[in-house]
Amino acid sequence: MSTRQDTKKAVLLLSGGMDSAVCLAKAIDMGHDVYALTFDYGQRSRVELDAAKNLAKKYGVEKHIILKLDLSKFGGSSLIDKDMDIPTERSNGVPSTYVPGRNLIMLSVAVSWAETLGAGSVFIGANVRDYSGYPDCRKSFLESFEKTADAATKKETRISVKAPLLMMSKTKIAETGRDLGLDFSLTSSCYNPAENGEPCGECESCKIRQKGLADAGVKI
Amino acid sequence: MSTRQDTKKAVLLLSGGMDSAVCLAKAIDMGHDVYALTFDYGQRSRVELDAAKNLAKKYGVEKHIILKLDLSKFGGSSLIDKDMDIPTERSNGVPSTYVPGRNLIMLSVAVSWAETLGAGSVFIGANVRDYSGYPDCRKSFLESFEKTADAATKKETRISVKAPLLMMSKTKIAETGRDLGLDFSLTSSCYNPAENGEPCGECESCKIRQKGLADAGVKI
Repeated sequence: MSTRQDTKKAVLLLSGGMDSAVCLAKAIDMGHDVYALTFDYGQRSRVELDAAKNLAKKYGVEKHIILKLDLSKFGGSSLIDKDMDIPTERSNGVPSTYVPGRNLIMLSVAVSWAETLGAGSVFIGANVRDYSGYPDCRKSFLESFEKTADAATKKETRISVKAPLLMMSKTKIAETGRDLGLDFSLTSSCYNPAENGEPCGECESCKIRQKGLADAGVKI
Repeated sequence: MSTRQDTKKAVLLLSGGMDSAVCLAKAIDMGHDVYALTFDYGQRSRVELDAAKNLAKKYGVEKHIILKLDLSKFGGSSLIDKDMDIPTERSNGVPSTYVPGRNLIMLSVAVSWAETLGAGSVFIGANVRDYSGYPDCRKSFLESFEKTADAATKKETRISVKAPLLMMSKTKIAETGRDLGLDFSLTSSCYNPAENGEPCGECESCKIRQKGLADAGVKI
């Protein structure tokens, strides 16, 4: 195990969605050696996993690990529970697509890998503006998590949590990806795609994505 | 999803080892409805998983979930990396059996389930005295984690992290289990058991356990 830290090395959470893809393009642009981590947590959208693989390949990441973690055993979210409907309208408060503790879990695993690698940071494409209803997308959570990760790891380990898209609007995210030459057709953001991978066009994630891309003048 | 919290309901991390078994006996004794969570994280000791199943059954927990999470993909710990030797002597500093971020990850998943269930607490059998080299067994980590879990979850969610064995010596843990009528033969603590499940008797975990049980006058 490496105990010396390498600030060039970064673990990046890559879902295959638009935000994580822009986050990847950004981390690469910042000069990081990226170790991409994708969760197969029982999400309905299997297309996301293929998107993550294609993005990792396209950007030539150092390593890409897909970890199975079957949170659908807990139920409770329409993203993983097939008996619940995916909402098509914006909800007040926390939407049913919220998977309890998802970012907490994913960041924890990223920190585990980062400590093993001796990496200095973990990247997450969390965004507070479009997902204000998700408690684990807030800055206060990310700051608190960074402190906890520091307490959880060895004395000499310092891992910073980087969320470069946190305060961006979806339009700004689309523009950032566009300016970094991201091929958005490689990404998949739909909560409820058809068998062949086509996005539904109706879920909240599809709508936000379409508007962001249109505003940034990106055509796919 | 339940949004009202039920302080009787508790999620408990159950490895199948002696500490988590005593923690289970304690939580049941405190009157909790226990939801037991076990990780199959690629540990060498497969016997632990059977021990966890038998303990869950014996204590009649509300539900027992075994989640696969293959941390051996990251390597870096002798508990999960078959190319590394299990140490038989106490090490200075962090031992090679340390799995980076393990308690951070397991607690995060426990919090996810607890929020879905509306449970008021998560129990972990962490113990600082015998595992002082593991950073994620310290009180400062657990306190920090509780704050982070609060930031990660919904406004109305309050989940307390309970580690009743944290400051106990191994002897005290053995005595506690003994006084609660725990059948220690159901537990498995060895880092490196034989194929048939027999403990090696030589790893640090075996030695600490044997001493604790002997001091408490427990015979198995």
